[in-house]
Amino acid sequence: MPIRNFTDLEASLSRLPRRRLAVINGTDDSTVSAIARALSVGNLEVAFVGAQPDGALATLLTPYADRIASIPLADEDEAARRAVELVRQGEADFLMKGLIHTDNLLRAVLDKEHGLLPQGRVLTHVAVAEVPGFPRLLFYTDAAVIPVPSRGQREEQVRYLDRVCRAFGIDRPRIALVHFTEKASEKFPCTMDYRLLAEASARGEWGGTVIDGPLDVRTAVDPVALATKGIPSPLQGGADALVFPDLEAANAFYKTLSFFARARQAGMLQGTVCPVVVSSRGDDTETKFLSLAAAACTIDVKQ
Amino acid sequence: MPIRNFTDLEASLSRLPRRRLAVINGTDDSTVSAIARALSVGNLEVAFVGAQPDGALATLLTPYADRIASIPLADEDEAARRAVELVRQGEADFLMKGLIHTDNLLRAVLDKEHGLLPQGRVLTHVAVAEVPGFPRLLFYTDAAVIPVPSRGQREEQVRYLDRVCRAFGIDRPRIALVHFTEKASEKFPCTMDYRLLAEASARGEWGGTVIDGPLDVRTAVDPVALATKGIPSPLQGGADALVFPDLEAANAFYKTLSFFARARQAGMLQGTVCPVVVSSRGDDTETKFLSLAAAACTIDVKQ
Repeated sequence: MPIRNFTDLEASLSRLPRRRLAVINGTDDSTVSAIARALSVGNLEVAFVGAQPDGALATLLTPYADRIASIPLADEDEAARRAVELVRQGEADFLMKGLIHTDNLLRAVLDKEHGLLPQGRVLTHVAVAEVPGFPRLLFYTDAAVIPVPSRGQREEQVRYLDRVCRAFGIDRPRIALVHFTEKASEKFPCTMDYRLLAEASARGEWGGTVIDGPLDVRTAVDPVALATKGIPSPLQGGADALVFPDLEAANAFYKTLSFFARARQAGMLQGTVCPVVVSSRGDDTETKFLSLAAAACTIDVKQ
Repeated sequence: MPIRNFTDLEASLSRLPRRRLAVINGTDDSTVSAIARALSVGNLEVAFVGAQPDGALATLLTPYADRIASIPLADEDEAARRAVELVRQGEADFLMKGLIHTDNLLRAVLDKEHGLLPQGRVLTHVAVAEVPGFPRLLFYTDAAVIPVPSRGQREEQVRYLDRVCRAFGIDRPRIALVHFTEKASEKFPCTMDYRLLAEASARGEWGGTVIDGPLDVRTAVDPVALATKGIPSPLQGGADALVFPDLEAANAFYKTLSFFARARQAGMLQGTVCPVVVSSRGDDTETKFLSLAAAACTIDVKQ
């Protein structure tokens, strides 16, 4: 059964087998509240690595004490390294960032010898949005990590997006490669890469996954706009997922969806051996909970 | 009185002095319907240059026959050149594209000897959006023309945006320079240009116009997000206008606003000696009418 919206996502969390989360410096209100909510819904175990929640926030966790471990460490770099080590030793299934600088967490995650990114793999950000009035979840990349993807990086982005869609129960993901127009042109190198990916998909090299582009944001998801422009596309304006040409475009999309279209959104890093939830300052409990749940769903996906 | 929304814009059209529009190949339903609506509201005169509307569409224009001129020409390049000539001879105040390829229209507009772009000026696209739930119009650039603006081009974009805001009655336009984060960094050259513009504005070199950046789409327009992130900005999350780092980002914003946030939008070319309304296939009557009205409002702006 595909996960069609965030209500389905929450329900699916309750059906997952045991998931073990390591959170680094999980001491802030929204992180602890999100974890408490996930503990109440799913078969989750949580290791708090580094600084420990206290006061009222600690009380939130009391009902789940038997599924919580504490690994107190004063230094945030050390905490990050320890959490990464838990994953490498098979004692945690995924990671979540608390009150630690993203740069410091990523240094541990990306460490060549002791980190979580296998050689030759690409770290990228995958987000999923539930937009009021839009009939399905919308997955996209990359609003946070790679400024301007190379051809190889983009192919990996498509691969991760494909896998995340499949983890959400979409059997034949429809992936749109976004550009400001539907014309491929040598003046815009990404569109040449797009044609290669679309052709490979047409030859069946991506299994049941349908990839097409260049398409703009609208012709990717709006069959009416596609028909009006008279553009043929195997996606038929029904994209499940969008690959943006660069970080600036993806980030503009992310912020515009959340503020102007009132979307709820979740996000995580992919490419690492397990998903890493890296929320940003200002993300609320809901966003962190949804990100945690989305990450938990994708753990079994072969990375 | 500032124009705060598209109802105000329509009302302002009725108060403008005479405006003379030249439309090139104005034969399609939405272009003719938009012009008929503008004729019914404002003190507009229209020259139909090139192919002429016929049948039911011609009937739409019958009530305004005394304000309509016909200059029939069979060749679309010739029609474009003639319309441009009308502006150069002081017989038309602005242009609108009908059923003609944008490239062909732009060739005439950009012609070095006989066109409408003075030497050293920059052609750019300015759009204005009315977003449900957002309390003011939002102006932005450039979703259609310049792929990656140079420092000089960006400064001109800010200048046009400033002037369009003022034409809409905003005395002290607040202009945000958009990036995916609020940090300026040499890794992202646009952010270095942004700092220079912000500093010049802080020194009072832009009159009452307040310019700040880098800001992301959200911290530009959302005081709550700005406060949560703890970022100081003279815009205080109240931007009237957004300058995007590149065309991909601006176009993603444009399409996302229109489809997911259900915004109504108008757009025009600036930099030329008069505004040029260049709608795209699939734009409806409403969009073309609003674009025509927005362009009519900005004619007296010193270009």
